[in-house]
Formats: sequence, C-alpha cells, structure tokens
Amino acid sequence: MLRIALGQMEVFPGRPDLNTRTMLTMIEEAREQQAQIVIFPEMSIPGYFLGDTWEQQSFIRDCEEHGRLVVEASAGMCVLFGNVGVDWNKVGDDGRTRKYNAFFIAQDGRLYQDSQFPYPFRIKTLQPNYREFDDDRHFYSLRKLVQDLGKNIGDLLQPVVLNIAGEPVKLGCMLCEDGWSDDYTVKPIASFHRNGPVDLLVNISASPFTLGKNNKRNRVFSKQVKDTGTPLVYVNKVGMQNNGKTVYTFDGFSTVYNGKGEIIDYCPPFLSALKCVDLDLNSKGNQQTPVIVPDDHDTGSIYQALSYGIEKFIASICLNKVVIGVSGGIDSAVSTALYTRVLGPENILLVNMPSIYNSETTKDLAARLAQNLGCRYTVMPIQEVVDFTIKQISQTPVVDLQGGSQFDLAVTPLAAENIQARDRSARILAALASAFGGGFTCNANKSETTVGYSTLYGDHAGFLAALADLWKHQVYDLARYLNEHVYQREVIPQKTIDIVPSAELSYEQAVDEGKGDPIIYPYHDYLFHAFMERWHRATPEDILTWYSQGSLEKNIGCEPGLAGRLFPGPREFIADLERWWKLYTGIAVAKRIQAPPILAVSRRAYGFDHREAQNGTYFTAGYLRLKEQLLGKNI
Amino acid sequence: MLRIALGQMEVFPGRPDLNTRTMLTMIEEAREQQAQIVIFPEMSIPGYFLGDTWEQQSFIRDCEEHGRLVVEASAGMCVLFGNVGVDWNKVGDDGRTRKYNAFFIAQDGRLYQDSQFPYPFRIKTLQPNYREFDDDRHFYSLRKLVQDLGKNIGDLLQPVVLNIAGEPVKLGCMLCEDGWSDDYTVKPIASFHRNGPVDLLVNISASPFTLGKNNKRNRVFSKQVKDTGTPLVYVNKVGMQNNGKTVYTFDGFSTVYNGKGEIIDYCPPFLSALKCVDLDLNSKGNQQTPVIVPDDHDTGSIYQALSYGIEKFIASICLNKVVIGVSGGIDSAVSTALYTRVLGPENILLVNMPSIYNSETTKDLAARLAQNLGCRYTVMPIQEVVDFTIKQISQTPVVDLQGGSQFDLAVTPLAAENIQARDRSARILAALASAFGGGFTCNANKSETTVGYSTLYGDHAGFLAALADLWKHQVYDLARYLNEHVYQREVIPQKTIDIVPSAELSYEQAVDEGKGDPIIYPYHDYLFHAFMERWHRATPEDILTWYSQGSLEKNIGCEPGLAGRLFPGPREFIADLERWWKLYTGIAVAKRIQAPPILAVSRRAYGFDHREAQNGTYFTAGYLRLKEQLLGKNI
Repeated sequence: MLRIALGQMEVFPGRPDLNTRTMLTMIEEAREQQAQIVIFPEMSIPGYFLGDTWEQQSFIRDCEEHGRLVVEASAGMCVLFGNVGVDWNKVGDDGRTRKYNAFFIAQDGRLYQDSQFPYPFRIKTLQPNYREFDDDRHFYSLRKLVQDLGKNIGDLLQPVVLNIAGEPVKLGCMLCEDGWSDDYTVKPIASFHRNGPVDLLVNISASPFTLGKNNKRNRVFSKQVKDTGTPLVYVNKVGMQNNGKTVYTFDGFSTVYNGKGEIIDYCPPFLSALKCVDLDLNSKGNQQTPVIVPDDHDTGSIYQALSYGIEKFIASICLNKVVIGVSGGIDSAVSTALYTRVLGPENILLVNMPSIYNSETTKDLAARLAQNLGCRYTVMPIQEVVDFTIKQISQTPVVDLQGGSQFDLAVTPLAAENIQARDRSARILAALASAFGGGFTCNANKSETTVGYSTLYGDHAGFLAALADLWKHQVYDLARYLNEHVYQREVIPQKTIDIVPSAELSYEQAVDEGKGDPIIYPYHDYLFHAFMERWHRATPEDILTWYSQGSLEKNIGCEPGLAGRLFPGPREFIADLERWWKLYTGIAVAKRIQAPPILAVSRRAYGFDHREAQNGTYFTAGYLRLKEQLLGKNI
Repeated sequence: MLRIALGQMEVFPGRPDLNTRTMLTMIEEAREQQAQIVIFPEMSIPGYFLGDTWEQQSFIRDCEEHGRLVVEASAGMCVLFGNVGVDWNKVGDDGRTRKYNAFFIAQDGRLYQDSQFPYPFRIKTLQPNYREFDDDRHFYSLRKLVQDLGKNIGDLLQPVVLNIAGEPVKLGCMLCEDGWSDDYTVKPIASFHRNGPVDLLVNISASPFTLGKNNKRNRVFSKQVKDTGTPLVYVNKVGMQNNGKTVYTFDGFSTVYNGKGEIIDYCPPFLSALKCVDLDLNSKGNQQTPVIVPDDHDTGSIYQALSYGIEKFIASICLNKVVIGVSGGIDSAVSTALYTRVLGPENILLVNMPSIYNSETTKDLAARLAQNLGCRYTVMPIQEVVDFTIKQISQTPVVDLQGGSQFDLAVTPLAAENIQARDRSARILAALASAFGGGFTCNANKSETTVGYSTLYGDHAGFLAALADLWKHQVYDLARYLNEHVYQREVIPQKTIDIVPSAELSYEQAVDEGKGDPIIYPYHDYLFHAFMERWHRATPEDILTWYSQGSLEKNIGCEPGLAGRLFPGPREFIADLERWWKLYTGIAVAKRIQAPPILAVSRRAYGFDHREAQNGTYFTAGYLRLKEQLLGKNI
C-alpha cells in the first residue's frame, strides 16, 4: 500500500515565489499525513500560460532556484513536480536557451537521475500545438531530442525506479498530453511497458476546464489503464491562467484509477487542497472500491467554471468592484447575477442608460433586476449627448483645403445606432467605472461575437467578456439555472427571459412590438457553431452540401426541419448563409481583434484558440459550383 | 545556362482563386520569355498567414484543386510552387487531416515524384514556431515524418533530379526556414550534398519584411552557398498578410546567388513581377557579374514598408478614406503624412478636437499640417460634452438598493483626462469616420504601447496602428525623412518636431511651458526595447545588474552616461525601473489585448509575436537580492 498525496494546488502563473510557498506548505502537510509520495501538477512552479516570459533568462533561472527549494524539502519522502528544465549549454530551434517542459523527481533532498536519461528530469513527449496550447514555441520535445541523440523514442521513455520503504517502485512519468496519445504515432504508455510491468503511471497535468472534458478523460484514461493493468494517478492544477485574449480556468479534478481503470478517489473540482490516497499497487488493489464522479457537461458545470473564472480573474487584476450596464435584456441580467454572486451586491453598480428607443418594459426590468439583487443602481440617460454628437458631426463644416470649398457630412441611421452604443460604454460606463473604483463588464455572448453584432468601443468593450463563450441558448439556460439553483428565487425577472432579445437602438427594434435581433438563435446558434467549434470547421461548401442532401439539421445539431420552415427555398437559404459567413469572416474579425479577454468554457473559445487573420471572405470553387447547381446559371 | 523565371508574385492570403490566376499569367509570361523553370514562393496558392482556416477541409480541397490547374499549365516547362500537401489517409497530432507545408514540382503537365519520397511533393524540414510563425500548429514536419517511417532525416532529404533540355539537373528543394538552419540540429543543405554535388538550391519563401532582414539573409545564404559551391535561387512573395493582431508586409527581394555566394540578380522589393535570369550552373557560372543590393536597415526602408503596408491593408479591408485626429503633435502628423501619400489628400479628413487644455501653439500646428498637405479639415471641440459627462457622473445619485441610501461619485483628475481621450476617439472620430465613409487611424507609437501610456477606447483606438512598431525616436526620424525625401518640403511643421511631446490633457502637460510626457524617450525607448525586443528579453534583474556593473548604456544601446545624469542614485534609478516594469507587465497588457492591428517593421512587433498573459508584475529573487544590496535592508 502506497500513501500518495495529490497536491492539487492553485498555481499562479508567473509566480514561482507564491507557487513554491504553496508546495512547501503542502509537502509539510503530506509529511504529517505520512504520505510517501507527494505529486504536484505540470509546471507547478512557473505556471503554464506565460506567453513569452519563457524568453527571459532571469525568469528561468528563478524557476530553477525555486525548484531547488522544493528538492531540499523532500527529506524522507518523494516529491514529484513540474518545472521548466533548462539546458544552458544547448539552444532550442529559435536559438534561445533550450527549455524542456519537465517532470522532476526529488527524494531525500536530491534529484533522481538514472543512466537512461541525459538530464536529472524527464521531459514531455507529446507537445500539443493545437487549441490553447503552444508548447513547441517554448519547449524542446522528447521527439526532437531522441532524433538529435540518434536514439529511438523508447530508449528515453523508460520507467523511473524509486526505492520506497525499501521496495523498488517503477513509475511511468507523463506530462499531460502524454496521456492523450490517440492521434499521435508515439505512444508513451506502451513504451513504458515495453520492458516489463510498471507499478504506477503518474500524469501531471495543466489541463484547463472544458465542458465535458473530464467525462472524456475518464473514458480515455480508464481504457489505457485497463489495457495495461497499471494504476494511474492524475494530478491537475486549479486556478486561472490566460493567454491574454482568452481566460482559462483549471479545474483540478485530480483522479486515482486502480489497475482495472476504475476511479477509486478524486479531488473536488476547483478546490486547492492536498489529498492523501492509499493505493494498493498489487493486483489486489483492483478490488479498491470505485467511486462515482460528477458529470461535467451540464449548465451547473458552466456556472461553476464561470463564477470561479470571474472570481480568480478579478482577483488577479486586483479589481473588487464592477459596473454593469443593464438594459433589461438577458445578457446583462445573467452577467449581473453572476458577478453579484462573486463580489456581493455592495460591489456592483448597475446603470441603466436609456435613449428614446428604450421601452418602459425594459427600463422597468433593469430596475427590477437591481432591486432583486440589492445592488447599487443609477440611471444615466444618453439622449442629450447622442443628439449633440449627431448635430456636431452633421453641422460642423468640413473645409476642402485644396479647393477651398466647404461641405457637411451626414449621419446615417446605422451610424446613429453605433453612436448610442459607444456613448453608453466609452462615455458613461468607462467614466463611471473609474469613479466607482472598478472595471465595467462586457456582456457579449458567443452568437453576436461570431458575426460582430455589436459596436466596437460600445457594447463590445469591457475588462472581461464572461459570457462570450456561450451561445445565446446557453445564456438562457444559465439564466434559468441561476434563478432555480443558485439563488433559488426569481432574481432575473421571468419577463427578461421571455421577451424578444433586442438592442433597442431604433424603432425597428421595439421589443413591445416583438421586434428584435436579426439573429434567429434556434437556427443560427447551430450554424455559427458549425463554422467555429467543429473540429473540422464547416464552411458554406459543407453547409450547402448538407442542405442539398437534406442532412443539414442532423449535421449542425439544430431542431429537425427548421431550415425548411425558415427558408422557402435554396435562394433564401443561400442569401442567409452568405450574409452571416461574410460577417463572420469579415467585419467580425476586425471587432474580435479588439475584443476584451473572453472566459473559455467550450472546446473552442474566441481568442488564442481561434487564430484568425483579417483576410476577408472566401467561397471555395466547390461551393460556387454547388450554388450554381441549386440556383441555375443566373445567380 | 538555365533560364529561370522568378515568380515574385503578390499573394493574397486565403485566396487560391486569385493566386492561381496570377500564377497562370506568370507561367504564360515565363513561357514567352523561354524560361525553362518558373519558381513561385512558399504557399503561393493558399497564402501563409491564414489562422485556423487550415482546419476547413473544404478549403484544403480547394487548394488542391487550384494546385492541379497549375500542374496542368506546366506543359513544356518546369513549375516549382508552394501549396499545402494533404494526406487524407493520415492525421496530424491534433487528429485533423494531415497537412504538410509542401514544395511541388510540376513538369510537362505532371507532378514530379521519385522513389526517395512517399509523396508527390517535398515537405518543409525546419518549421519555425517562434516570431510570427506557427507552422507546428498546422503542418506535420519532415522531422516527425521520418520518425514515423523509422528513417533518418537524410533519407528523405535527397535532391530532386529533373530532366531539363535533355540534361539531368539536381535540385535541392527548400522551404524558407530550411535555409536558416544555424540554430537547428538538422541541416538540410548538408543533407542534399551528402551523396555528391547538387546543381542548384531553390528556396521558396514566405518571409515578411523585417528591418535589416535582407542584409542578414544575404550574409547567411551567401555563406551556405560558398560552403557548398552550389548556386541558390531564393523566391519570396510580396503583399500583405496578417495574424489578426499584427500586420506583416512581404518584401519579395527574390535573389539569385552564384556558386561563390555572390548576388548576380534580384527582384526589386515590394514589386509583384516575374523576372527571368540566366544562371550558369557550371563552375564557370561563378564568373557571372555580381550586383550591389540596396541596404534595408534605414529610415527609407521603414517608410517603404509602412506605406506599402498601409496601402495593402486598406485595400484588403476595402477602405479608401480615413479620418485622422490631429493634435499638432508628432505622431498624428507623421501618420497624416503617410496616409496622405497613400490615399491622396482628398480622401483624408483631419479633425482637431481641442479642449481647454490645448494650446494655441498645437491647434495652429494641426491646421498648418492640414494646409501643407491639402487635406479635408475640420475642428470639433470636446469641452462641452466632457463637462457634461463629468457632471453627469458626479451629480447623478447612486441608490443603495439594500440600505436605501443615496450617494454621489467623484471624478478624479486622471479620470477626467481619460474622459477627454475617449470623447475624442469613441464619440467624435468613430462617428466622423462613419459619416466620411472610412475608418479612423490609431497614431500610437511603440514607446507608449509598451507602457500603456494611452487611453483604452481613446487614443488607443482605430482600425490600424501604423506607427505602433516604431519607438518614439524612430517616429522623429520618419518625420524628418518624410519632409526631406518623400515630400521634399516642410509638410510636417518643424515646430511639431521641435516642441515637447505632450498629451495636453491637463495644465500639467502645457507644451508652452515645456511640460509634456512622463516618458524620457532618449533613455526609456532603449529600456523598453531591452524589455521587449531583445532575443533574450531583459528583466529588471538584467537591467539592475548592468546598472550596478556600469554597463547599462552599452547593453541597452542608449547614450553613454545617460542613466547617471538622469538618476542621482540607485534609489531613483530603481524607482523609475520598477514604475515602468509594472506598467509594461500590468495595465499595458490589458490595453494591448484590445489594441488595433499593428503594422510590423521590427524584429518583434506587439501582437502575435509578443505572446503575453495578463499575469501581473513579477520580480525575480535575484532582482530582489540585488536591490537589497544596492539600497540596504530598509527598502
């Protein structure tokens, strides 16, 4: 029986000092609990998402220095942890000091090293460069190292043999992606087992929360364990890390699998705490009683990740107050309910900013929301300044300094809508946030972010877009969840959930007449999802192919028969498809470049994991042929 | 003698249709000129910086389809080009269809293939993942492929043997980075030569303009050629491509090196044109007369890259008019002179937006600039709305809906400064741009972008930040260059160059009293450069080490003795250092996340090639020790 301490710690990115302090405390705690091994996550000392901080030599020296403190603290036990491994005598492909994403094994005050491996640490074999990961930019992989050494992967993927209580224990040391080898030609787990049985697989991870990820991980990891019969301990970090444009939560959820692939224990998600587990490494250990883990694919998980992410992000930028512009609509209401839960109503200032286009209905709903939550509340109308601005733009003469003539400019109705949106955010919210001593939120959702249905420097602005990874239908689900499960009363007025979503920037968008957004969410949410979230991203060519084959709804996941009901024929279907595709690949890209950080929950959020260029719209030759087939030559 | 046509084409990213059309036209032209080989750049069909467009299967099928058109056009000649190479039966590490960054060789209507290589194309060996490059995210490298096949790199790095006019010609086919192998353990050129002499090295590239890059390329490539005695043809694309946040120009500058490493011909930079060159492949060819290439490390090159980049970027987003807020200061003046050159004065609307803090001096300079260039001009004061906003924020009561009490908020002087800046950009410039039918520019420079000395949604806003990769001293150099060399008269008033740079947002920044920015450009430009542009990025630990060793100015490149004159002692030096480091790693990160696209000229521009997380400020343990040494314990 091996007593293992899972060091599911909160890692602060770029703070070796704080992280080392946490590790030293947890090591003491593990010692008191007579743990024989304590395991910390991948990159537990430096943090993982650090951008180009890795290019600072003084920073990597600092990581090494803090790593030595952890090694020194390992007297009488074994400490496994993640840190950057540096080879000061070699360079990486970029000519900078060579760095590895490394797995350190310390025992009795010394680093473990054996003749199998050229360094006193093991290194990551599979380096992800998709999604939010960027490992190849900074770290030299084992695949490159073996090539340089003229060896095979298997030569360097050997178990580490520890002596614990006088017994040899063979460990297969993996870093995160090493356990997700399905799509790779290299299989670390198989390599460890090549020369005989292994006692324990250890996977130290820095794996962000993604809706449904843990369900998948448990399937993938259980299968690997079953195939080899070797128990596995997975240790993941908690906390918040970001890539600038995208903010990720780390959910921990560290898990112990017995040799049959059953989960015998796990750490609660989003909780920084050490947990001791007794694991029987013998095959008898497969009788250890399995436990049931919670599902992570429901609205409750979204709520948990968002509220945790907001809390950690706000703390990291030292904010403790926020201003939220409340319109009476669904997005700002959900935003308010979330932030209020995190910061308390006394730190939330809600402001309603009506123009002549705002209905009594929505103004009333905004006030009711504030009342229900007990926040600070004020009303600051924008009409006066909007009118002044339109007049100033259209009545100040412009001089042609070549010809000497003068002319006036005109403000179009669309321009007037944008003036309102910018007046609310850039004039009032920004100034109000500063006066209140906080930031102001961006309440955009993923549907409008996809097609740029927002105003730059207007409703698109803010310090964080906490809902921008939720499709509109998920925002509604979250609204209901907040009322039913979090507050257990109607804090978001039911009418806010029921009325037509509208920006109320003109009489064309009058909610009381049932007029609102041009996006038909029950269909477009799924169309946009197909453009954006599918692993093989869909384009108009795919969409039109599915449409012409009658398999559209099945492929994109919306209600069966919906496209047929919405569009009388292919001409209307194509016009709609091209309209949104042009926006998604056109002006929306320009807007996203200047968007606030987005809090990620899905498999793909905008920002760092949606690399995009302002390249304009393209229709493939295959699309154009299909369109011609459907519409005839005269398109 | 081999007649080679260099297809230095403008590549439109994400537009296989347009690029193929260009290639077919150039192939015809090359045929008319009796060229035996025509060479196009890397990724000439799809373009290079496409973000995650590579994840659209219909797009990569479309690239293949267009590639076949180019192959069909190769009757009677040999066409070398870059495209994505797809293996539909394999996956990449991300589980998506496997894609290679590939070099295609077409001859007489067919693709070349030999038994040395598993595909009818060659693939990139060295995939850069530093700077603006992201190859590993999308493409499977030769290094991984040989590992999968259980081969050595050299097995797959064999020359291609073409039959040209009845003679065998051995080609070493390289893609861009393959020619920059200094920091790599794999050396493609050496591999090609392993089994005997090679007749010609061909490097097809997608290499963005960087100040001084061509000087370096000519040194590196000449040396490689000299070492092997094999002539080399380098073909690079022209045009503009972007990664969203950063906009790159491609300068072409395709070059032919004889076997002695001398340049015997080159294509003019930034020009889309086919050029035929007769190259003698025999050693006699080393007598072909060398030519002198222009230097690319001066202000003239900066001007060329910026004006080309502005022209192409504006065209790509279908803008033909811009609005520029002109303050009378240097940044907006340089911006105006650049845009006017590209678009003509009739398409430029300049607006001066004074508050009570703007001096007659600068208002006058703004008008004079407009006059000198003959632009459209108007004046729109902001004071009325600024006063209204301050009053609205501070005099509208806020209600505490829990306690029922009311309170007022206060607007601080700093908040009032930001209100002015946002009023100018988000209220006036954005509305004015819309009324004028164009976009408005962001005139920020790199110095202020580094430390966030700007207002979000204020002077930080715009559709493009064309000067944001220039340090303040480079902006002054460019101002002088524009007057002396471009316009050859004083379009930027000399006084704009001479007065103290100032934001004029308060009486503390009164230019007529010589008061202005808190940044001391002759020193801080170089300090910030050390933080940001050094290959091994400097941190306070490095800076303080150099300071304490007396080697600061030498290391950062500013005027000798400057730090000693500016700071009486270490206490003042350290206070200044920490102030700017905190801004650079703090609030400035948040501002850059929402910054407009930046036009790159340096080795590192902000945006895609300055990956950063909002992680706050960190001082290494080494820094803190050194600081304590210098200041004593009581710091």
